[in-house]
Amino acid sequence: MLTPFKADGNIDYEATGVLIEHLRKIGISGLFPLGSTGLFPFLRTEERKKFLEYVIEHSHGLPVLAGVGSSSTDQSVELALHAKQVGATALVIMPPYYITPGQPEIISHFSSIIQKAHMNTFIYNIPQLAGARIEPQTIETLKNTFPDIVGMKESSADMRYFSSIMRFSSNDFSIIQGQDDLLVPSLSIGADGGVCGLTNFSGDVVEAYKAFESGDYSKAREIQINKIVPLLEKTNVSRFPSGYYRAFYEKFNLRGGYRSPMTEPKK
Amino acid sequence: MLTPFKADGNIDYEATGVLIEHLRKIGISGLFPLGSTGLFPFLRTEERKKFLEYVIEHSHGLPVLAGVGSSSTDQSVELALHAKQVGATALVIMPPYYITPGQPEIISHFSSIIQKAHMNTFIYNIPQLAGARIEPQTIETLKNTFPDIVGMKESSADMRYFSSIMRFSSNDFSIIQGQDDLLVPSLSIGADGGVCGLTNFSGDVVEAYKAFESGDYSKAREIQINKIVPLLEKTNVSRFPSGYYRAFYEKFNLRGGYRSPMTEPKK
Amino acid sequence: MLTPFKADGNIDYEATGVLIEHLRKIGISGLFPLGSTGLFPFLRTEERKKFLEYVIEHSHGLPVLAGVGSSSTDQSVELALHAKQVGATALVIMPPYYITPGQPEIISHFSSIIQKAHMNTFIYNIPQLAGARIEPQTIETLKNTFPDIVGMKESSADMRYFSSIMRFSSNDFSIIQGQDDLLVPSLSIGADGGVCGLTNFSGDVVEAYKAFESGDYSKAREIQINKIVPLLEKTNVSRFPSGYYRAFYEKFNLRGGYRSPMTEPKK
Amino acid sequence: MLTPFKADGNIDYEATGVLIEHLRKIGISGLFPLGSTGLFPFLRTEERKKFLEYVIEHSHGLPVLAGVGSSSTDQSVELALHAKQVGATALVIMPPYYITPGQPEIISHFSSIIQKAHMNTFIYNIPQLAGARIEPQTIETLKNTFPDIVGMKESSADMRYFSSIMRFSSNDFSIIQGQDDLLVPSLSIGADGGVCGLTNFSGDVVEAYKAFESGDYSKAREIQINKIVPLLEKTNVSRFPSGYYRAFYEKFNLRGGYRSPMTEPKK
Repeated sequence: MLTPFKADGNIDYEATGVLIEHLRKIGISGLFPLGSTGLFPFLRTEERKKFLEYVIEHSHGLPVLAGVGSSSTDQSVELALHAKQVGATALVIMPPYYITPGQPEIISHFSSIIQKAHMNTFIYNIPQLAGARIEPQTIETLKNTFPDIVGMKESSADMRYFSSIMRFSSNDFSIIQGQDDLLVPSLSIGADGGVCGLTNFSGDVVEAYKAFESGDYSKAREIQINKIVPLLEKTNVSRFPSGYYRAFYEKFNLRGGYRSPMTEPKK
Repeated sequence: MLTPFKADGNIDYEATGVLIEHLRKIGISGLFPLGSTGLFPFLRTEERKKFLEYVIEHSHGLPVLAGVGSSSTDQSVELALHAKQVGATALVIMPPYYITPGQPEIISHFSSIIQKAHMNTFIYNIPQLAGARIEPQTIETLKNTFPDIVGMKESSADMRYFSSIMRFSSNDFSIIQGQDDLLVPSLSIGADGGVCGLTNFSGDVVEAYKAFESGDYSKAREIQINKIVPLLEKTNVSRFPSGYYRAFYEKFNLRGGYRSPMTEPKK
Repeated sequence: MLTPFKADGNIDYEATGVLIEHLRKIGISGLFPLGSTGLFPFLRTEERKKFLEYVIEHSHGLPVLAGVGSSSTDQSVELALHAKQVGATALVIMPPYYITPGQPEIISHFSSIIQKAHMNTFIYNIPQLAGARIEPQTIETLKNTFPDIVGMKESSADMRYFSSIMRFSSNDFSIIQGQDDLLVPSLSIGADGGVCGLTNFSGDVVEAYKAFESGDYSKAREIQINKIVPLLEKTNVSRFPSGYYRAFYEKFNLRGGYRSPMTEPKK
Repeated sequence: MLTPFKADGNIDYEATGVLIEHLRKIGISGLFPLGSTGLFPFLRTEERKKFLEYVIEHSHGLPVLAGVGSSSTDQSVELALHAKQVGATALVIMPPYYITPGQPEIISHFSSIIQKAHMNTFIYNIPQLAGARIEPQTIETLKNTFPDIVGMKESSADMRYFSSIMRFSSNDFSIIQGQDDLLVPSLSIGADGGVCGLTNFSGDVVEAYKAFESGDYSKAREIQINKIVPLLEKTNVSRFPSGYYRAFYEKFNLRGGYRSPMTEPKK
């Protein structure tokens, strides 16, 4: 989920309702607010809490995975405890970015949060933004140490890495592709689903997923290659994630805004 | 195909016969000598010609795709004319490496060779070694200019790129995955096959391909994740491509050698 | 300046006093708290404010450059207004990290902060952590738009870039090297000084600077190559910046701590 | 030295004479034919030999450092033996490119050549083209094993690396900067000189060097920042090294050519 903004840069809760309604209509199976597309690092702690509360209140029973990423372990702990308190289904934790953490720092960060929050948790791998990759060995260590860890959002765009971690896939550990244009290739080797930004304004990803799950591989492939790939390329012509915001605002005739330092994409 | 060496570093033609026989037995549909695994840059021009002739003579009717890569356009032209003369099925041309060419240099190189050799040609994309990626626009330009271009070996290991070029796939343009561990994901979005180094000593890749083609996706996935991925990781613990050589020598009880500057992998 | 921690992970103000005293003794000409070595992203907003206040109160008249970096423009504005209010000499602003900003996002971020704080500002270039390089054209734009911008801390470790921006150096725009092991080469082409992490526990950098300024180039070179380079390599064997913390704690016999997610370096 | 070409792409020996005459006039202290700017990978073995012979014959007593780089150890050996036979002053050897060699492959390659040629040798570090960096430990190993190794051309553009290897500098081991825009910073920490491509058509680099050596640091700095850096940036707007060729042809009113796959730079 992106975080809808008003023209003045404040969060637009009305538009957030529109977004949730749209996501329910196209048939997604859960909500992930406050991820990278949601621009969590641009938000203040209080905004993040309030936004999460709003999403949970308007989720109509859909699971809500709460992004609690931070470069500060302390802040992630605070956000995790809040997410638990307000009823999030699970946490989504990423490495403590900025300082390009090593694997021990990643383990320390995850451990501190999970030990305090004790709730279902997804590992979020996104090295191009977090400054570090979560190595397979680290995933194994975390997974074996904390039964709270129930899965992983894998957004590296590196299918070689994705393939190498598929060996961890099980009933107790879901692996979910975070890149829209890699959805079908990932499903073909057993991925459990996708957390895909294009859903913010398009139903293509859900259609591809459903086609694949129903065994209609040729339809899934056709949507993947002819719809998702070009749509993603078009959306990402603008600096990530501003293209998602423009497409969402345009689809729903919203004036919309771009929270600084995000800038409005050129037409 | 790797290029088998004797302990003294010279090409081992007897072992080459063993390799071709093995490849035929496991059911590959064509031979690609003198690619990166074949260590073509370590060979002298005359060696490359003689090795190609040997492979063609012992191909038992299998198509032979001749690698004619070079940093020198002149040398690639010479090798292409020779390949044509001795009956290769098609050329495999890569960008002129070392100098990290731009797209105009890539187009110039391909054009010079194809205009002189006039024969079926595969584009070989391997940016991690060639020092440059062949951009989708360049592929389109080359493909539209030269009907001789019949396909592409894509070895970037970047599935995002692979997805974006799948729009060029047609009856007249085959797209082939060059990375073993990305075979099934690539087939799932319409790739025409694989050019896979593990075939030098293992039948797993061919089995996965056949399973996929026969519609047994779960078997294909199972081989991909549980056999190919770990075997590739194990093979590449040694500096590429020395692990392929050791595995081949061991499988066929050959003494075998490592042409300098390749060094024997540590046990 | 690093941010000294107690064994429980809280800021150690007594040790901070020790650090400032040490820095004054070795002869530094200004203090830069809350930079990358200071681990600002691990601190909460209130901690950052309190630490800055402490440093200013104990600066004994030394200029204090306040790091106000954040991925959130809003937070940087808040920190800048606070820094102004409590008497910081200048701001040090970096690009809004995490989202790998483009140049327009960088300009937007800097502009928002400077327009609100109206005080002397240093640009902080550290692409390896900020996720983006501040292009020379962007520096020129910012410098020409805001007379408040009085200089730059350049920590890219890329001397080619450093050389290319030296054309901006003037009486109104200081360029300062942020990498200890590039100090003397930078001074040789006109850099105005260094902001160097080794000063936290060593006087070598200041000695090299003074030797250079007094015209004793051979002494400067000697310290650079034989003392600074090996000391920096030794310090950075541990994950940055934990080696600086250990060396500081050891030098002053402090128990010291490692704020999570930083982990204690192995011996 | 670049390798002058005629409009038809063949080596232009008359222009080569013009180039050598120019280099002598501006006061260089040695010639380095068949390096990267010389586009050695675009030349056939026989061309390389003939070009080297021409340069030696017309060197008027200047030392000639012969580039014998190749991805094939065998070819490098052949070129080294030839260089020795025709009276080159020293060899310049680079890692065996294309295959992204590891340190053992680099050591194997250098050892094979030096053991056969037994003559003065410079190590040539240029990771951005060779696909691998020569690690400091490897330099130490090679240097200690082979007294024939008398120095190093360091073209990585990484001053951190350059600083770290300056500890090897001695009367028996010269370290030479291969990047024009890093000349003065390198001299400031003890580099023995530069191997600089701009000398092909400009005297600025030699002037900067002489100013530095005579103790006129402010003149050296002035030339470095105001002449060399902008001239290098202008030259490298075109794909390396075509801008050097155009500038050389224009300076001496030569028609000149661009050996394929190099393409003529756009005006």
